[in-house]
Amino acid sequence: MKILITNDDGIDAAGIAALKKSLSEIGEVTVIAPRYEQSAVGHGITMQIPLRVREYYKNGTFFGYAVDGTPADCIKIGIRNILKETPDLVVSGINHGSNTAINIIYSGTVSGAREASIMDIPSIAISVTSHTARDFEYAGKIAKLLAAKIEKHGLPLGTLLNVNVPDLPEAEISGILVTKQGKSKWDDIYEKRTDPYGHDYYWLTGDLTDADKDLEFDQAAIKKNYVAVTPIHFDLTDYETYKEMKNWNIGKKE
Amino acid sequence: MKILITNDDGIDAAGIAALKKSLSEIGEVTVIAPRYEQSAVGHGITMQIPLRVREYYKNGTFFGYAVDGTPADCIKIGIRNILKETPDLVVSGINHGSNTAINIIYSGTVSGAREASIMDIPSIAISVTSHTARDFEYAGKIAKLLAAKIEKHGLPLGTLLNVNVPDLPEAEISGILVTKQGKSKWDDIYEKRTDPYGHDYYWLTGDLTDADKDLEFDQAAIKKNYVAVTPIHFDLTDYETYKEMKNWNIGKKE
Repeated sequence: MKILITNDDGIDAAGIAALKKSLSEIGEVTVIAPRYEQSAVGHGITMQIPLRVREYYKNGTFFGYAVDGTPADCIKIGIRNILKETPDLVVSGINHGSNTAINIIYSGTVSGAREASIMDIPSIAISVTSHTARDFEYAGKIAKLLAAKIEKHGLPLGTLLNVNVPDLPEAEISGILVTKQGKSKWDDIYEKRTDPYGHDYYWLTGDLTDADKDLEFDQAAIKKNYVAVTPIHFDLTDYETYKEMKNWNIGKKE
Repeated sequence: MKILITNDDGIDAAGIAALKKSLSEIGEVTVIAPRYEQSAVGHGITMQIPLRVREYYKNGTFFGYAVDGTPADCIKIGIRNILKETPDLVVSGINHGSNTAINIIYSGTVSGAREASIMDIPSIAISVTSHTARDFEYAGKIAKLLAAKIEKHGLPLGTLLNVNVPDLPEAEISGILVTKQGKSKWDDIYEKRTDPYGHDYYWLTGDLTDADKDLEFDQAAIKKNYVAVTPIHFDLTDYETYKEMKNWNIGKKE
C-alpha cells in the first residue's frame, strides 16, 4: 500500500512524525507537508506565488518533502509532480487539536485529505482533540485500523473520513463511533489591543458553542471519550433548497 | 434592508464597487473587504496573527473598511466588532472569474458568504465568469433581484446562494437557472521554472475538466449563457456513506 501523508501543523510537528511511524508498519509512506504551520487555512491553494519544494531531514535522515504552501498544495503538487505513482491512500494529520463540527470548514488538516478525494484517492483526516496532545500513539493505531477498513470496504469516490481521537490513554477510550458533522459553532470574540505605536489590532478568540448533545454528532462523541469517524464529501449542493427554489420563479416578474 | 458586502479580489476591485452601487438602491450598504487580493484562500481565517481594520477612501470619499485578512475574517470581525446591528443580508463579490463546480471549494468569494450563513445570516456569493470582466452592471442587477427573492421567500438557516453570471451583455443572456454544483475539476499542471539563483519553483496552472453537460449543473449552465444560481450549505456529512459504514464494524476484530 502506497500512502502519502500531509498535515497542517507543518512538517516538523510531532503528530505527523507519529503518523509516519505508525503507517510505515502497513505501507510505503511518503511525507509531503507544509514547511510552516497552516492551521485554519481552509481549502486554500497557492496561485499568486510559485511554490517551492525542499527535501526535509530530521536528525540527519530524509523525512519527506517540505512545501511552502497549504496542505491542499502539498497534495496537488505531490501527486502531480513529486510522486512517481498515484498513492493508494492519503492521510492528513495527526492534527494537534480537534476538527469537529464547524471546524471541518476551517481546517487545513481536512483540506489536505479533501484535496486527495477530489483527485479520487481515498483519504483520511485525523486529529487528536487537544492542542497540547503529547501522545499520538493511539491515534496512529486508529489511522492504521481505518486504512485497513478502507482497503477492505472501499470508500465512494469523493468521500473521505474525518477522524477525531480523544487525547486520552487507550484504556480510557469509550469506543469508536461513526458520526455526523456536529452543529456547534464559534462564539467569536475579537480582543482589541493597541500596538506600541498607538494603532489598534484584533486577536480572534472565543469558544465553541455546545450545540451537540447526541452521540451521533462528532463533537458530542469526543466529549464522551469516543473516537468519532465522520464520512464527509465536497458536494455542497443543498438539494432540498434546490427543489424548493423551483417555486421562486426566478427571472419572472412577480 | 441592511446589507454587508465583502469580496476576495480586494476592496479596490471594480466588482465590489459595482455591487455597492447596485445594492445601495435597495438598502443601506456597508463594505468590509480584504485589503489585498485573497483569491483561492478557501475558507481560511486568521488566528496566528492579529487583524487590523482601516477606513478605506476612494477618490476622497469613505468607501468601507479594509481588513488585512480573508473574506471570512471580514465577515466575522465586521459582524462581531464593526457593525452596530446584524445585517439582514450579506453579499460577497462581484468576483472576477467564475466559481462553479469544484471551484466552490477553493473560492474566497464563496467563503465570505458562507461565513455569514454560519452566523445564520442569509447570504449570496456572486461572480462574473471572466477574469477580465469589464461590465458588472448586469451582475449587479442579478444581486438586487436575488436579494428581493430572499426577502420574499427566505432561505433556510445555513443555506446560501452561489451565483455565476456569464460575462455578456444582458441581451445575450439565455435566462436564469437554479442549478447544482457541477462535477468538473482541475487538470492541474505545475509549470517548473528556475529562478535567477538556480533554484526550482513551480507555478500552478491547468484547465477545468468538462464533466458537466446537463444544464442542471452550474458549469454547464454558464457555458450555455445562463445565470446559474446554486443553493449550497456547509453540512459536509455524507449521509449515504454514514449509513453504509454502520456495517464496517469499526473497532471489532474481523
